[in-house]
Amino acid sequence: MGEQGMDGRMGFVSDHMPILRTIARRFSEERPFAGLTIAVRIHVEPKTGVLIRALVGGGARVVAMGNKGTTDDLLVVYLRNLGIEVFGSRADDDMTIASNLRRLVAERPDLVLDNGAEMIELLVGDQQSPLGATEETTSGAITLRGSLRGRVPFPVLVINDSPLKAIVENKHGVGQSVVESIRSATNLLLHRRRMVVFGYGWCGRGIAQYGRAAGADVVVIEPDSIKALEAVIDGYAVSTMEEEASRGDLFVTATGHAHVISVDDMERMKVNAVLANAGHFDNEIDVVGLRKVAVPSDRGTDITRYQFASGGSIDVIAEGRMVNLAVTGSRGNSIEIMDLGFSLQALCLERLAIDPARCSVGDQPVPADIDDWVARAMVAELR
Amino acid sequence: MGEQGMDGRMGFVSDHMPILRTIARRFSEERPFAGLTIAVRIHVEPKTGVLIRALVGGGARVVAMGNKGTTDDLLVVYLRNLGIEVFGSRADDDMTIASNLRRLVAERPDLVLDNGAEMIELLVGDQQSPLGATEETTSGAITLRGSLRGRVPFPVLVINDSPLKAIVENKHGVGQSVVESIRSATNLLLHRRRMVVFGYGWCGRGIAQYGRAAGADVVVIEPDSIKALEAVIDGYAVSTMEEEASRGDLFVTATGHAHVISVDDMERMKVNAVLANAGHFDNEIDVVGLRKVAVPSDRGTDITRYQFASGGSIDVIAEGRMVNLAVTGSRGNSIEIMDLGFSLQALCLERLAIDPARCSVGDQPVPADIDDWVARAMVAELR
Amino acid sequence: MGEQGMDGRMGFVSDHMPILRTIARRFSEERPFAGLTIAVRIHVEPKTGVLIRALVGGGARVVAMGNKGTTDDLLVVYLRNLGIEVFGSRADDDMTIASNLRRLVAERPDLVLDNGAEMIELLVGDQQSPLGATEETTSGAITLRGSLRGRVPFPVLVINDSPLKAIVENKHGVGQSVVESIRSATNLLLHRRRMVVFGYGWCGRGIAQYGRAAGADVVVIEPDSIKALEAVIDGYAVSTMEEEASRGDLFVTATGHAHVISVDDMERMKVNAVLANAGHFDNEIDVVGLRKVAVPSDRGTDITRYQFASGGSIDVIAEGRMVNLAVTGSRGNSIEIMDLGFSLQALCLERLAIDPARCSVGDQPVPADIDDWVARAMVAELR
Amino acid sequence: MGEQGMDGRMGFVSDHMPILRTIARRFSEERPFAGLTIAVRIHVEPKTGVLIRALVGGGARVVAMGNKGTTDDLLVVYLRNLGIEVFGSRADDDMTIASNLRRLVAERPDLVLDNGAEMIELLVGDQQSPLGATEETTSGAITLRGSLRGRVPFPVLVINDSPLKAIVENKHGVGQSVVESIRSATNLLLHRRRMVVFGYGWCGRGIAQYGRAAGADVVVIEPDSIKALEAVIDGYAVSTMEEEASRGDLFVTATGHAHVISVDDMERMKVNAVLANAGHFDNEIDVVGLRKVAVPSDRGTDITRYQFASGGSIDVIAEGRMVNLAVTGSRGNSIEIMDLGFSLQALCLERLAIDPARCSVGDQPVPADIDDWVARAMVAELR
Repeated sequence: MGEQGMDGRMGFVSDHMPILRTIARRFSEERPFAGLTIAVRIHVEPKTGVLIRALVGGGARVVAMGNKGTTDDLLVVYLRNLGIEVFGSRADDDMTIASNLRRLVAERPDLVLDNGAEMIELLVGDQQSPLGATEETTSGAITLRGSLRGRVPFPVLVINDSPLKAIVENKHGVGQSVVESIRSATNLLLHRRRMVVFGYGWCGRGIAQYGRAAGADVVVIEPDSIKALEAVIDGYAVSTMEEEASRGDLFVTATGHAHVISVDDMERMKVNAVLANAGHFDNEIDVVGLRKVAVPSDRGTDITRYQFASGGSIDVIAEGRMVNLAVTGSRGNSIEIMDLGFSLQALCLERLAIDPARCSVGDQPVPADIDDWVARAMVAELR
Repeated sequence: MGEQGMDGRMGFVSDHMPILRTIARRFSEERPFAGLTIAVRIHVEPKTGVLIRALVGGGARVVAMGNKGTTDDLLVVYLRNLGIEVFGSRADDDMTIASNLRRLVAERPDLVLDNGAEMIELLVGDQQSPLGATEETTSGAITLRGSLRGRVPFPVLVINDSPLKAIVENKHGVGQSVVESIRSATNLLLHRRRMVVFGYGWCGRGIAQYGRAAGADVVVIEPDSIKALEAVIDGYAVSTMEEEASRGDLFVTATGHAHVISVDDMERMKVNAVLANAGHFDNEIDVVGLRKVAVPSDRGTDITRYQFASGGSIDVIAEGRMVNLAVTGSRGNSIEIMDLGFSLQALCLERLAIDPARCSVGDQPVPADIDDWVARAMVAELR
Repeated sequence: MGEQGMDGRMGFVSDHMPILRTIARRFSEERPFAGLTIAVRIHVEPKTGVLIRALVGGGARVVAMGNKGTTDDLLVVYLRNLGIEVFGSRADDDMTIASNLRRLVAERPDLVLDNGAEMIELLVGDQQSPLGATEETTSGAITLRGSLRGRVPFPVLVINDSPLKAIVENKHGVGQSVVESIRSATNLLLHRRRMVVFGYGWCGRGIAQYGRAAGADVVVIEPDSIKALEAVIDGYAVSTMEEEASRGDLFVTATGHAHVISVDDMERMKVNAVLANAGHFDNEIDVVGLRKVAVPSDRGTDITRYQFASGGSIDVIAEGRMVNLAVTGSRGNSIEIMDLGFSLQALCLERLAIDPARCSVGDQPVPADIDDWVARAMVAELR
Repeated sequence: MGEQGMDGRMGFVSDHMPILRTIARRFSEERPFAGLTIAVRIHVEPKTGVLIRALVGGGARVVAMGNKGTTDDLLVVYLRNLGIEVFGSRADDDMTIASNLRRLVAERPDLVLDNGAEMIELLVGDQQSPLGATEETTSGAITLRGSLRGRVPFPVLVINDSPLKAIVENKHGVGQSVVESIRSATNLLLHRRRMVVFGYGWCGRGIAQYGRAAGADVVVIEPDSIKALEAVIDGYAVSTMEEEASRGDLFVTATGHAHVISVDDMERMKVNAVLANAGHFDNEIDVVGLRKVAVPSDRGTDITRYQFASGGSIDVIAEGRMVNLAVTGSRGNSIEIMDLGFSLQALCLERLAIDPARCSVGDQPVPADIDDWVARAMVAELR
């Protein structure tokens, strides 16, 4: 796909991000970022391209870089042609990425859009104090509330804590794409399969709902009694790993905890049981432990068989990495879901630029009026 | 139905209240209420009969009375034969009920199970200080946090605030029975009818879900932007009264607020539009105002037609009273839902009897360990 | 309810029968039945009142009678006041009904609307040959194809064979009302209950669908392999009575065959298992056999407990009669469903009146153009 | 992926084709094809590899070739290593394919598995009369009933006419994969999108069901009044192209007819409307006509924008080819669905081999006992 192709792709994506487009139109009139430098660290793909264009249109000088292994090199060219400084390429190794991060910090940005709190850590270490930052992820929030607690002298608005994202992105976005990714990786029907879902948080609720809609017989494992009661009255079987290890056809983790499925559990599973992880980290299924006792072999793109000495064997999708991103051909969140997330980003950066006094120092949720505005805008689009 | 019939009905109900039966069995061994008098104010019907038997089996002397117009006189006889003092009958008027309430308070109860906080008000006025009380309803909780705020010298555990009740009773219990009651009162299909639901709290979520399952085209009206976003991503149309008044076929209120549907709204509705209220109070639809401008006539059991001078006319179910209770033949909450609610009641009364020090003075939620125990028990029954 | 009350009820019902109203309007202009006598045998309740008015408005002299035990006496008065001859009352015994049938036949009707083919049998015996007849039920159709085969010298259009009725009335009308009636009779939640449905014909498909929507864990028992495959790919468990007798919580028959649930099966059931029949005849559950080996007792309105000598016991709803009609408070099919059914009736009677040559002698389906017209009209109402 | 990789893929696929494996086991004992040559024309991918191995294990000499552009070259190597003669490669052009077809016919096969009736046409032209043939597709069946009518001197069992395939493959297999493919190609949410489905046959029913489960607001366009009534009572809006052209967000055709969406219709559509075809032929959307009046451009993989001179523009997925096959990354039917289809194939070929007298000459459906056996086997797997 050449440059014209990228125009087309950007056009399609932009056409389906009406909320961010509305914001971009206002930014281009009001120029809230005039004279400011924004350092952006984010997956560099068409949806983020639309965000970056909105910031630039609002007067910002943007310096940007991608995450490991996800940078769309054609988009880098496209953005550079628009005069945006973009560092890095898909092939970057850890050292190059670390060096690029330092280059971004060296720009002494006024505003920071961070993804994992690594830039914020560097800024704190460097005793810089920009107007403020936004943090996209939960893992970044954990760092902010952990090792960085009380040490960040500027406001950080944590996008992922917005209730909008829990409902729209986690329940419906993740729930639906996890089920679709499992179907895509395996080419199997889920009809009447015993699908064991670990965790009945927002993601688990979505996985259960879309799993049932795909025909599966869903079983939920959830230690919290109130959530377990919600699962059972929502119509799902509720059970324990003890009982399900030898009964389930498909196991999906969405708990945020490590080793939810242990090697012992896996050794008890039926031959041909399929395992997938929907959580952010790749340790919910103990694949590291599994590799010590079972022999892996290829069972098709994205599927690894693990053969136990005992004779049993199971199939793990994408080595236990987040299934809705890791499976070949997956494209991550839907365009409209990123329209919501990036609209929160754009408005939070604007707030930090023009009215930093309304924010306190340290990590904090998205301001309620911004949540409210974006929620109303999305309702108006979908209703 | 004679006395033997009541044995059969009580047996059927008791057989489907396994959690309360388990508690009753323990009560009969441990006798936590030995020597205590419990004043109980509650709908007197078979499900409450099972609760009262459990308290008596636990050693209590129980004095009980019913609510207006719902007392099952055959059950009164049945309970009296078991040696329980029950005041009142279905025919009681307001004065008799007030007098019965004073009789209960005059018993100087050690524990109180209240329903609307009226007994608690009398106890406070009378400067009695029992070991504690439970309050079943939200409206009682409002009194406790309003006119009684800071004035109650004993603990009051508010059953209705338990998250278990929100999920199980409000979403699924009320949601399902509201839809069934509307079907029963009208004998109409809901398929493809534009069903406008006011409020997307727990009740509204349930009404929308079961309305859609019954074939309706559900539209949600919800001023809170986050809840409105949840409604729209759950797949419902979200709209405004402005737009829907003249489009809806069926309107159902579940907001907890007065005059959600105004007389003006009703005058704009289509001929034959049907209205029902699922909220606790009968003022969500402004029936009082309606009567001033429209002529009522009978359109069948539970349905009143209101004819406007302008020529329009609408049909209101059960005069805007809570539809899942007021419609002829409705039986209120399912047996299992009361098993959950009354198990919370029984364990809260036990807590107040044997360990009042673990409770503080004034209104408070159900202790977390009791919520947890009952949730686990219900999961074990349903899973 | 007085006469004015009946006006209101008739008004409500008529307002929700738009297809039949459209037909009635045309009839009143075209008078297709001018000079003809129509003998009508049907449940006499408000919905049929609307049909009878349409026929009278079309010029017919109508003589009508009800079925056993279902006649609405207030409606009889109402219809007589309109000048329609109606025989019988709710209290009629079999002899009175037989005598009324003979009175109808003695009127030498030109057209006959029959319900069970009893009038047709009498007409054949009496060697009368009216212009034609319609037959509402499947059981009437069985007689027509059995003992009356080749003996009826006039056309009989069998309404129940219309594909419209299979889809609308059997799947959705019966399916939904069966589930609601079971809920109403028991006051139990169906959530997570193992609900065993016998038969995956149109009724069974509907019962399974609405049972699942009510939260049940639906299991289908179906001997036909193609239908069983449809059930399983529709997401239901498929099993055998052998396996399910001791596992099911609720059993619902919808097969059209006798003794689908035998006494042996019932003896193997769990204590408190609930049984209901949705089929036309009350012998799908072998209640006659059951009474020989188990002791009945009352467990509430519409529920009979049967206690086995072995200690087990089960609860049967409405003694195995058609649950969606027999349960107290049930009102039979929804108004819109009868709008469809009675529109077929009205147009078939018109066809027989004005164009009998387009029909052949003996039983036959509803003419395709009439099915088509009514289907389009209902789509236009619901779409 | 090397040879070992193909072992793994074939293993995964074979493990999820239990019905065909059961048949293969019996074939290897009974050797029904001993001494016979079977010519197989089919998509050459792992699922068909399992079928071919079963035939070879049953004693057949198999000569096979693929369809245009779908041959998996690694599988060709794999099969040749098993001693199977496979002609062709992914890169074959029409001439090579025609030549390969003639090579297969030149082998004078005893049995033929055809895909589009092209081999059967050649055999008839060549005056060969093998024991019999199976035909996989509807389009082949159309040829058999059209130009070949009365001219085929041997039995042809038409697999696609089996009711099993209508229910399992068309409704659930196609329905689900069409919705997933649209989601995959566009990366858009379907929630609250107006999704206009053309045709309410088995495929359309499935597309509507899975579209609604994916959150879409489904509208059905269906000229047949009975099917339209089924759609509306199933809960979908029913409308016309007239009304929907300017309202729909997404249009999906599944009718089997050409030009269901005309150029005129497309010119009236909203900007950014998305179009996809689920029917076998790529002419349900008139893309040929569209190209004459609108300018195409790339909008991302699998999406082409068409810009009208009038200013409007629409996005067509995969140029109107069958969306669940044509979208990048799609894998066609699920493994279990091909287990069903290929089990029918294997048993039909066996019937032709060992009991050809039970079949008549010319095209005919799958024998009822084979349908029954396979349906029971699949129910046993899924129940």
